[in-house]
Amino acid sequence: MLTAEIIAIGSELLSPSKTDTNSLWLTERLNELGIQVCLKSVVGDDPPRLEETLRDAISRSDIVITTGGLGPTEDDVTRESVARSIGAELVHREDIEEGIRQRFKSFGREMPAVNRRQAYIVDGSEVLPNSNGTAPGIFIKKGEVSIVVLPGPPRELKPMFTDHVIPRINGGAGRIVFRKRVLKVTGLGESAIDEAVAPIYKSFDDVTTGILFNRADVEIHLTSKGADQASADARNEELASLISEKLGTAVYSTAGEEMEKVIGDMLTERGQTLAVAESCTGGLIGERITDVAGSSLYFLEGAVVYSNEAKIRTLAIDGALIEKFGAVSAEVAEAMAEGMRGKSGATYALSVTGVAGPGGGTEEKPVGTVFIAVADANGIKSSKLTLPGDRYLIRWRSSQAALDLLRRRMLD
Amino acid sequence: MLTAEIIAIGSELLSPSKTDTNSLWLTERLNELGIQVCLKSVVGDDPPRLEETLRDAISRSDIVITTGGLGPTEDDVTRESVARSIGAELVHREDIEEGIRQRFKSFGREMPAVNRRQAYIVDGSEVLPNSNGTAPGIFIKKGEVSIVVLPGPPRELKPMFTDHVIPRINGGAGRIVFRKRVLKVTGLGESAIDEAVAPIYKSFDDVTTGILFNRADVEIHLTSKGADQASADARNEELASLISEKLGTAVYSTAGEEMEKVIGDMLTERGQTLAVAESCTGGLIGERITDVAGSSLYFLEGAVVYSNEAKIRTLAIDGALIEKFGAVSAEVAEAMAEGMRGKSGATYALSVTGVAGPGGGTEEKPVGTVFIAVADANGIKSSKLTLPGDRYLIRWRSSQAALDLLRRRMLD
Repeated sequence: MLTAEIIAIGSELLSPSKTDTNSLWLTERLNELGIQVCLKSVVGDDPPRLEETLRDAISRSDIVITTGGLGPTEDDVTRESVARSIGAELVHREDIEEGIRQRFKSFGREMPAVNRRQAYIVDGSEVLPNSNGTAPGIFIKKGEVSIVVLPGPPRELKPMFTDHVIPRINGGAGRIVFRKRVLKVTGLGESAIDEAVAPIYKSFDDVTTGILFNRADVEIHLTSKGADQASADARNEELASLISEKLGTAVYSTAGEEMEKVIGDMLTERGQTLAVAESCTGGLIGERITDVAGSSLYFLEGAVVYSNEAKIRTLAIDGALIEKFGAVSAEVAEAMAEGMRGKSGATYALSVTGVAGPGGGTEEKPVGTVFIAVADANGIKSSKLTLPGDRYLIRWRSSQAALDLLRRRMLD
Repeated sequence: MLTAEIIAIGSELLSPSKTDTNSLWLTERLNELGIQVCLKSVVGDDPPRLEETLRDAISRSDIVITTGGLGPTEDDVTRESVARSIGAELVHREDIEEGIRQRFKSFGREMPAVNRRQAYIVDGSEVLPNSNGTAPGIFIKKGEVSIVVLPGPPRELKPMFTDHVIPRINGGAGRIVFRKRVLKVTGLGESAIDEAVAPIYKSFDDVTTGILFNRADVEIHLTSKGADQASADARNEELASLISEKLGTAVYSTAGEEMEKVIGDMLTERGQTLAVAESCTGGLIGERITDVAGSSLYFLEGAVVYSNEAKIRTLAIDGALIEKFGAVSAEVAEAMAEGMRGKSGATYALSVTGVAGPGGGTEEKPVGTVFIAVADANGIKSSKLTLPGDRYLIRWRSSQAALDLLRRRMLD
């Protein structure tokens, strides 16, 4: 089995609040190819330490991947350090500089002189094109060792790795392939799920099963190993089907999709439409729904009715209703959904009103009290939630619960 | 200035879903003592790699901290590897074994034979008591270098570090303290900023300056060192002021605050209100504004007018205007802002309409074409953006540009 080391470069990654997450994604990709990650390092913009780390890695591993430090400024030292670690020179490449110049031009800007640094690569190496940024990646073969130099931003690194690195390293990978699959479950706790499905997954020796809580849901991670992708995928599929059968509608996703994608697919398939009225989530539900490309097919509109006046004016809610029950109540949530459905003409209207905190809680309605409602041609259904967590989590969990209410309504 | 390296040990930390978080907490503690973390590694239960990593770290840093790998089983290799890396022996300590035995006894259990391994420590080292677990830590002085061996579970590691490690390394830490400060800048590129401010920050020998691009903005990270917090803060303040003066209103945050917080503070201070009308951002701007606790003071409402019908119905936009200029146009952006201001009565109304992609682009208005507008009592101002990136980035950058348009309008 081939071994890999990952070196994340950048002093900002050595602060108390920053962590290198690229290596997790890279590890997953490498494992899928049957390559094991044996060591990860984080080094600052510190040429001597970086050079030593590179030399050690190159001397003991088959694949060495660096991330970051390819920017245009002086503290970006990766190019120089990689070259020195293998005793090579940096060479200027006019074609790369021209590409960078064109990229700036396409945004109506001139290339700053400092970006010329990004047109230098290690002599004798291959250039890895960057479709989302100025810094190209570098691929070096030094004896049997592959050295892969990637930019730090995930949006640049990921497509570069998928498109240009995997084809270069895949040929040498071993014969065991790992494949991952994620199921997502709402409305059930971690231990309840484990009790229900442990007898199933324990009979799959070749699949590792992990059960993880993630913000609002529980995720079931399956990692199968097989001689090839197809057979590994088939084992995951087999186990995923048995788990889905056991847990029923609580499983909203069997291939890692987000809730908003699942709902988008259901709406598209049925040719139905959606509108939302949000108070405490402040636009989060609209944002999540429209994060899905093509959502204009089914998403008509959203209203962020943060103030009472906005609720009354925009959704034609009776002020007396708010007076009587409070803005955070099942009655107002239902009126919001009904008002939005009437206004928009959507098949479904979804609403949320609640206390996200940290202020605004009362004894009767403490922080975390949230009402959600869904309206369609068959009527209105609402639900009260009591959510733990801080402002961020309460808002996120509210949005997830509202979307799940819609999902279950559609399945009814 | 003392330097430290942190080595996290355990094969589970090299999986795609696990990350070493102990090092973040340790970095914060070390920085408070004026000790800089220069390198972090994650090594599996792999004696040769671990030994080499330890040797390198000991050869170049003042303090080397390992976490994990002190369990009772055979894959816990830290004790042996540390001993070998400094050419020392492991010795059995009867008093430690007796302590572990007592700990088991207090839970009504007998010590399993395998736990005897945890009673071995490096010859000549000091034992660091573990109040929350069986594995003691180890403190070794090798010449001038301090080697600190800690257990992996955070609830064992943290009190051990606070109670037994800080007193041992603090005396030698010298009097230097590090303080961090982040400035955030919009509307200028990384290289343009570096060109403008390099002459300033280069004259501050005691402050390390890093310039980083982050989604839509550039961040300037200052790390100063001083004899105490106050003097280090003062140096950051001095440099931050000079940079702010040089870059002017492009600097929107001088203490790391998010744009939505900066705007919220400005609105609160002035007693003004805000409403937003969003198309391609789908609720993201509302979500960001209301992410700030207390935003109900100044945020009145938002409209996510995704369909043309919603734009016409909710914001009283003339359908002929959309027909003539298209939904993605300066004219419609301005009408959206004007319509929302009229409807809500807010001091400011902000609007966004654009093509977030991946579909929907045309030759005239390709993906990334976005119009933003702000309306207030003095009139309406709009701006056209041509944004690079994928759907996520275009939406995020649109939201940031719109908020920045509002900020600059308020500063006018």
